[in-house]
Amino acid sequence: MSRHVLLVDCQDRPGLVHAITGVLLQHGSNVLGNHEFVDHDGGRFFMRTEFIAGAEPLHRPLDQVQLVAELKAALPPGASVQLTGQQQPRIVVLVTKEHHCLGELLMRHAFDELGAEVAAVIGNYSVLQSLVEKFAIPYHEVSHVGLTREQHEQALFALVERYQPDYVVLAKYMRVLSPAIVERYPLRLINIHHSFLPAFVGASPYRQAWQRGVKIIGATGHFVTNDLDEGPIIAQSVIPVDHSHGPEDMAQAGRDVEKSVLAKTLKLVFEHRVMLSGNRTIIFE
Amino acid sequence: MSRHVLLVDCQDRPGLVHAITGVLLQHGSNVLGNHEFVDHDGGRFFMRTEFIAGAEPLHRPLDQVQLVAELKAALPPGASVQLTGQQQPRIVVLVTKEHHCLGELLMRHAFDELGAEVAAVIGNYSVLQSLVEKFAIPYHEVSHVGLTREQHEQALFALVERYQPDYVVLAKYMRVLSPAIVERYPLRLINIHHSFLPAFVGASPYRQAWQRGVKIIGATGHFVTNDLDEGPIIAQSVIPVDHSHGPEDMAQAGRDVEKSVLAKTLKLVFEHRVMLSGNRTIIFE
Amino acid sequence: MSRHVLLVDCQDRPGLVHAITGVLLQHGSNVLGNHEFVDHDGGRFFMRTEFIAGAEPLHRPLDQVQLVAELKAALPPGASVQLTGQQQPRIVVLVTKEHHCLGELLMRHAFDELGAEVAAVIGNYSVLQSLVEKFAIPYHEVSHVGLTREQHEQALFALVERYQPDYVVLAKYMRVLSPAIVERYPLRLINIHHSFLPAFVGASPYRQAWQRGVKIIGATGHFVTNDLDEGPIIAQSVIPVDHSHGPEDMAQAGRDVEKSVLAKTLKLVFEHRVMLSGNRTIIFE
Amino acid sequence: MSRHVLLVDCQDRPGLVHAITGVLLQHGSNVLGNHEFVDHDGGRFFMRTEFIAGAEPLHRPLDQVQLVAELKAALPPGASVQLTGQQQPRIVVLVTKEHHCLGELLMRHAFDELGAEVAAVIGNYSVLQSLVEKFAIPYHEVSHVGLTREQHEQALFALVERYQPDYVVLAKYMRVLSPAIVERYPLRLINIHHSFLPAFVGASPYRQAWQRGVKIIGATGHFVTNDLDEGPIIAQSVIPVDHSHGPEDMAQAGRDVEKSVLAKTLKLVFEHRVMLSGNRTIIFE
Repeated sequence: MSRHVLLVDCQDRPGLVHAITGVLLQHGSNVLGNHEFVDHDGGRFFMRTEFIAGAEPLHRPLDQVQLVAELKAALPPGASVQLTGQQQPRIVVLVTKEHHCLGELLMRHAFDELGAEVAAVIGNYSVLQSLVEKFAIPYHEVSHVGLTREQHEQALFALVERYQPDYVVLAKYMRVLSPAIVERYPLRLINIHHSFLPAFVGASPYRQAWQRGVKIIGATGHFVTNDLDEGPIIAQSVIPVDHSHGPEDMAQAGRDVEKSVLAKTLKLVFEHRVMLSGNRTIIFE
Repeated sequence: MSRHVLLVDCQDRPGLVHAITGVLLQHGSNVLGNHEFVDHDGGRFFMRTEFIAGAEPLHRPLDQVQLVAELKAALPPGASVQLTGQQQPRIVVLVTKEHHCLGELLMRHAFDELGAEVAAVIGNYSVLQSLVEKFAIPYHEVSHVGLTREQHEQALFALVERYQPDYVVLAKYMRVLSPAIVERYPLRLINIHHSFLPAFVGASPYRQAWQRGVKIIGATGHFVTNDLDEGPIIAQSVIPVDHSHGPEDMAQAGRDVEKSVLAKTLKLVFEHRVMLSGNRTIIFE
Repeated sequence: MSRHVLLVDCQDRPGLVHAITGVLLQHGSNVLGNHEFVDHDGGRFFMRTEFIAGAEPLHRPLDQVQLVAELKAALPPGASVQLTGQQQPRIVVLVTKEHHCLGELLMRHAFDELGAEVAAVIGNYSVLQSLVEKFAIPYHEVSHVGLTREQHEQALFALVERYQPDYVVLAKYMRVLSPAIVERYPLRLINIHHSFLPAFVGASPYRQAWQRGVKIIGATGHFVTNDLDEGPIIAQSVIPVDHSHGPEDMAQAGRDVEKSVLAKTLKLVFEHRVMLSGNRTIIFE
Repeated sequence: MSRHVLLVDCQDRPGLVHAITGVLLQHGSNVLGNHEFVDHDGGRFFMRTEFIAGAEPLHRPLDQVQLVAELKAALPPGASVQLTGQQQPRIVVLVTKEHHCLGELLMRHAFDELGAEVAAVIGNYSVLQSLVEKFAIPYHEVSHVGLTREQHEQALFALVERYQPDYVVLAKYMRVLSPAIVERYPLRLINIHHSFLPAFVGASPYRQAWQRGVKIIGATGHFVTNDLDEGPIIAQSVIPVDHSHGPEDMAQAGRDVEKSVLAKTLKLVFEHRVMLSGNRTIIFE
């Protein structure tokens, strides 16, 4: 028996759930849970099905190629059909100097709570090396010193590619990625950043937040895209602060909410619960 | 065209979604959204489908009786099939002396945000009468003074029955209902009450909460049943408090969280988003 | 006996708390609670003291003029000293067409939970008139039709002034106030508005929020000033939303969070718990 | 210059703040922040003052013994006066098999965010040993196998005592401590546990929570005392769950909320922000 997640994204039309479940039934799948959503604005249909294959009555392993082919035949032209198995995704984590998000990932990884295999951590400084190595995970420093932005990015991603990751997680990696890199990893680059109400632009955001007297500090986990200043949002949360918090206290609050939002973001992505409708995410929790 | 919600609850077996969507398709329904859940513990299948009938290509009104009959034929014996239309449910609200939950319901009702028709409000005191009458809704006082509990309940529910409500909402109605009344309204009696961590029993709960120094005060919206001290939970939330809150401040915090949780509870119930698996609710949000 | 709140705001120097409490002690005040805060960035000292006067051992009414004079003598030059009594503030509420914040204020007012006297409600439409009149509060329509912005504002605030309010609450009043009006009411104009992460500019904010796929919707209660696009923040909160919320559902979520944040904002202001350090608030909860 | 926190707890009477700040002033202290609270129920006064000593104009180190003596002389008989310096508290952490709270503490400790020195971790199993040793902190296994409860506790606390901790943190230490041990560490034993609405007693709490269909799972950080089934509450929070969470998902949600509530609890304790009034805490945040 094997466990799978099927993601379908296509033009909406009547009968899609019936058609898809018909194909799944013929392949002997035992559905554990379905989620569907129709985005009426764009007329698109989204479905996530979690199922077990190879159980009674068919007792034979799932023919994944055949299943996908039959699903595509049953769906409108241009349908996207993704079928994943039980294997955990491989990730590479990029960092700069901040430890909080990385620490959260390493600790969850060490106790099988991350839902992914951390293949390597790569940073442009060495300060996080000893933390990573405590957990017996390769750390590479790719310093940007003396390199152009392009040269540094090429060196960094040459190393990333060596690990063939399913996702690249920017765990407070503080350098902007070029459009070429972003295009190479569609829906595979995941970032976390703080968010404020109202929003701030420019340097020293926590100092600005403090000067502004904000009462909550937020964090947003999102895919990195070139379409927007900030790509499709996967998860968001906030933490309360008050006037007694100085800029450094606000930064600590920001670190706390960032690490918990990043953990939630990754759980949703690694469990294949995130689909995309234009620039907004559909989250099948 | 008409809009409907279908709720199916039956023994789980392979092919249920396919079977149900097949019947819906033959009736020309255009599915707006599906939710399914399989409770593997009890082996039960739950489905909520929101659909439009009467659109192309069939262009004929939905034959509801026929649809339900065909669904039952396609499902395991004993399946529960509920089909509702667009009509808002009718409710009767029971109160004692506290205004906060009632006020929230009346205000939402006045601006078409409640999702139900408030047929009447009935209380065992007169203090809330003028509030209710501001909104041109009938108020009845059924005093318990001089009556046995049974006599009072009979008088009260004789009046309730006159309005033939779909649901009876206990908006801080502070008297315990007899098992006979509870059985008469399965999944139709909705209550709100405060909740504490840890829980308290007995009188003056907010004084106890204050003495205990709790840091959060909660509220639970639930169905009233005879099975448990407290029936299936529909919605819960909490509000933070601290040592500067005296017992009355804690009670005010409790009122604030109660009214918002009751509003959420009722929205879920009135939109037919709540199903029951044993003593726990399935909420299709 | 009488109950008072004293607010002191002055240049920081050693011994301020000792000096202030010394003066209070000589006036026979019985301190119920003190809060102090030193904003080290600007070197300012803030203090809120709640006290009872007229009790033992002095048994004489508080000489407020004398108390303030002695406090000023004991404090650095330019100190701000505000002494308030038990009288609830008077407010005028400005509205346009949205009912949710107004309804919350009226209901709390009706049951003595608002902490202020609502002298009148003034709007530029008539749609909320019947709601206000249910609660026996004067409603005035001052239509902007046919008037310049300046003429309308003059007519509106001539009416506001007739009620001599302590505060003017903008309960979804959707027109921008001129700098001249804002200057006339320093820290007396209170507004509520939705907030998003990331922030949006321009029309149809909920449509934008929906297109952007935000996962939380926020609200900010603040003083209106001319210094910033948005004045000092008093209270903020958020409410979770997801992809199943269309623009109208997001707007409903926004209404729910706005009304609860406005209630909290007003409670803080009416209890004299808000002080100002530059553009940020000190909240003594 | 040196930084201190002063905690005063005594019978309330007029003039206490004036008296205390007078003594502090004479010792050349520069107050950074004061918090006071009067518990009118028991007539007790609580104050926390954070101050810098040794600055201008006195330029001499703080005479702590003299300061405390003068404060006691100025306060009602029986006053509690605690003066602490800048040294971080030393803690010993007790664990059983669960890693989540321990991991959070170790990671914060590794990056100087814990506010305490972790002297050692002691557990009754060996499963967490390798995690602790990654961070170069001593781990001791004191197995309970073959020992009576009393023998085990004696062995365990003999080891604890060797490290002379200021606090003992029960980071999911799953064995009940005897009254004798609890009495030995008044307000020095800190525990974290899950909390439910409604509360459950007995084994498999997450299975019970799941069967009950709870919608939120909470955690409570508290002092361990013998007075109550559960001692004075320091911090509480909740995390939302729904019907799609099985017992193991609920346990994971519980772990997530426990580790963040424990971190908050410890921050409050280690910064000397927690005082006790009867069985409830005063938290000066």
